[in-house]
Amino acid sequence: MSEVLDRLADLLEQRKGADPQSSYVAKLYAKGIDTILKKVGEEAAETIIAAKDGDTEKIIYETADLWFHSMVMLAHVGLRPQDVLKELARREGLSGLEEKASRPTE
Amino acid sequence: MSEVLDRLADLLEQRKGADPQSSYVAKLYAKGIDTILKKVGEEAAETIIAAKDGDTEKIIYETADLWFHSMVMLAHVGLRPQDVLKELARREGLSGLEEKASRPTE
Amino acid sequence: MSEVLDRLADLLEQRKGADPQSSYVAKLYAKGIDTILKKVGEEAAETIIAAKDGDTEKIIYETADLWFHSMVMLAHVGLRPQDVLKELARREGLSGLEEKASRPTE
Amino acid sequence: MSEVLDRLADLLEQRKGADPQSSYVAKLYAKGIDTILKKVGEEAAETIIAAKDGDTEKIIYETADLWFHSMVMLAHVGLRPQDVLKELARREGLSGLEEKASRPTE
Repeated sequence: MSEVLDRLADLLEQRKGADPQSSYVAKLYAKGIDTILKKVGEEAAETIIAAKDGDTEKIIYETADLWFHSMVMLAHVGLRPQDVLKELARREGLSGLEEKASRPTE
Repeated sequence: MSEVLDRLADLLEQRKGADPQSSYVAKLYAKGIDTILKKVGEEAAETIIAAKDGDTEKIIYETADLWFHSMVMLAHVGLRPQDVLKELARREGLSGLEEKASRPTE
Repeated sequence: MSEVLDRLADLLEQRKGADPQSSYVAKLYAKGIDTILKKVGEEAAETIIAAKDGDTEKIIYETADLWFHSMVMLAHVGLRPQDVLKELARREGLSGLEEKASRPTE
Repeated sequence: MSEVLDRLADLLEQRKGADPQSSYVAKLYAKGIDTILKKVGEEAAETIIAAKDGDTEKIIYETADLWFHSMVMLAHVGLRPQDVLKELARREGLSGLEEKASRPTE
């Protein structure tokens, strides 16, 4: 299942050369980082709203939108989901899920 | 690499029975959905800030935080990252990355 | 200058009876609270982006959008900006700007 | 009532010289724009959560937090709430509340 992120990252890479008129992602790249980040903020809001509704289908849909637009952002700055997974694995390796708890209070 | 999400989901599941004092995640579960969603909003803001700075390391770190807290939310409502990956795969299958573009303008 | 908020609140009240086709605000009311809240999230993201750019004109513009959509939300749930100002005044009266600092750490 | 914003802006100005240890706002200034903007994102999320709960008292409280931290941001970059009110008045003068509707679709 998780090879989905690899395939998605490949597709996001391919879209970099595409005509902005031909593709939603190519249009986002053309509009630039601010438009992509605005979408990240918007989808975070929609994920929160869906979770407050407790609507399972909507939660999946909006979280997919949030992760998708995060990946567009990563691609736009030359990163891949694997970089994020590696960071998550690193935390797990160091100290399970508890790494964050040990950071100084923000 | 992507089995990271599976392992993480398993760990998030295990934390459900843990003492809130013993674990950052168990504490989040105990505080409830509002606290978890507040963290999703906060990490989205930090991801935006990191991307505006163009700081690669910070972008990876904050996106990992955003995905991590999304997964805590998913676990809290009985979902797994696989549900989100399945939705992303479904979109890809239907129409590549362009599914969203074909949705009626919001 | 600050009577602006009163006038704006009056206008937002009047729009409640308006045809959704005739007015941006009437359309937001018709779409409901989720659409309004999505706009609050989106404008918060745009305010953050503008502030990271240090672009004074854009900061004013996006903060105006954020406050405006907060006021649409307030109107939609039967509140007015005065309720928020009263809360801000209450905090100031109690303990200057420091009230929040004295709240238990979240 | 609305002179509250003026008084608040004056207080935020005064805090600029204060010891970070002595005041919540002075501490925010000292931590810098990223910490302030993270608070803006966090309070937007909490406002959304409160509005989804339909909890009037919480909505007022969280919107006050959102406006307050927006004002800290404005003060930090040398602006005042009056700049935002002026922008809101300008829109109203031009075309009532409908100015935004006439902007090109984003």
